[in-house]
Amino acid sequence: MRMAELSRASGVPVPTIKYYLRAGLLPPGERTSPNQARYGEAHVRRLRLVRALVEVGKLPIATVAEVLAALDEPASPHHVLGVAQRAVTTPRAVAEGETRERVAQRLREVAERRGWTIKPDEPVTEAVLGVLATVNELGHTHLLDQLDRYAELADLVAESDVDTVVGLPSVEETVEQAVIGMVLGEPLFAALRRLAQLNASAHRFGDPECDPECETSGS
Amino acid sequence: MRMAELSRASGVPVPTIKYYLRAGLLPPGERTSPNQARYGEAHVRRLRLVRALVEVGKLPIATVAEVLAALDEPASPHHVLGVAQRAVTTPRAVAEGETRERVAQRLREVAERRGWTIKPDEPVTEAVLGVLATVNELGHTHLLDQLDRYAELADLVAESDVDTVVGLPSVEETVEQAVIGMVLGEPLFAALRRLAQLNASAHRFGDPECDPECETSGS
Repeated sequence: MRMAELSRASGVPVPTIKYYLRAGLLPPGERTSPNQARYGEAHVRRLRLVRALVEVGKLPIATVAEVLAALDEPASPHHVLGVAQRAVTTPRAVAEGETRERVAQRLREVAERRGWTIKPDEPVTEAVLGVLATVNELGHTHLLDQLDRYAELADLVAESDVDTVVGLPSVEETVEQAVIGMVLGEPLFAALRRLAQLNASAHRFGDPECDPECETSGS
Repeated sequence: MRMAELSRASGVPVPTIKYYLRAGLLPPGERTSPNQARYGEAHVRRLRLVRALVEVGKLPIATVAEVLAALDEPASPHHVLGVAQRAVTTPRAVAEGETRERVAQRLREVAERRGWTIKPDEPVTEAVLGVLATVNELGHTHLLDQLDRYAELADLVAESDVDTVVGLPSVEETVEQAVIGMVLGEPLFAALRRLAQLNASAHRFGDPECDPECETSGS
């Protein structure tokens, strides 16, 4: 198909497609004349993925390029997941000094109980330590007390994450779906958790704004 | 204490404190002369909270102001949580047309099974629908198949979230800790889930980069 059809099929405007081509996020089409090229279903698929990573995943273009490069490398799903995870993880706070020692020790204990391997200096490890240090500084000790429970639930969520990509017919599909799940699974679970929080807090603290019928589920 | 001491105690630079005062994120100190004011422990506490919401929660200043206004209103924890949740939730994608119908129906079924009340037009509902629509468009049906399981786990996480603020001595403390938990609990759980994913994917797909000792937990 021509560029205009590719745009219609993917829902991505032509100038954006040209930008993605220049940025290397989309492989060039098959050249049919000096200024025309032909694109296929693989381009439609890739464009949808790029749009999801950029618009919903909120990833910077350079990060999307890194993630796509990992996808296009022939490697094990575990390897691709690791590359993608490092690319998409930006620690939000830095844990330093004595506080760092304290929260790192707490994380080591939790990891030991869960059988997790914690690699030091990984962005994801820094991300956990940074948030823990901030929570610690704010004196929200009850959140830290629940760390084992959160880690246990994170294990169950991660099991489901892996379940969504097990048994797919090819390595390519497995890694693509794994990356989609990693990037979109985060806002999805965060939004579900907020729905659940509203529900749980209405149950525990009561909902004075709510008339009886709003207690009915699914209304 | 004076502004300089407030800065040392909170770790927030003086120009930033002045900016927060002008933006109304911090109540003015007690004026002791035309150009001097005295600040107390409440200011230190509030500054640490503002910093966490801005730097770790990545909330825009206007959103932080809304959340703090809700905190300072005398109201039930459930009410404050609702205001804070609406303030911090920005749907990342819009679900439209036929896809919207399909994913909304799916969400209604899940909510029914979980006993959740889904209020239409709430940002959090739109957030769930937007991600589901994107996942649907990408054809990641396995993720949608796991929606009930994710909702079930979201309920368990939300129970733990509520547990962290139950039994606190005052309403003020309860709502402050609830907001901290809501804003910081998200990056914390996301990072724990990624640690768990790496672990789960190494188990399921093997980790060819890893020598035997890196299988040991807590190393």
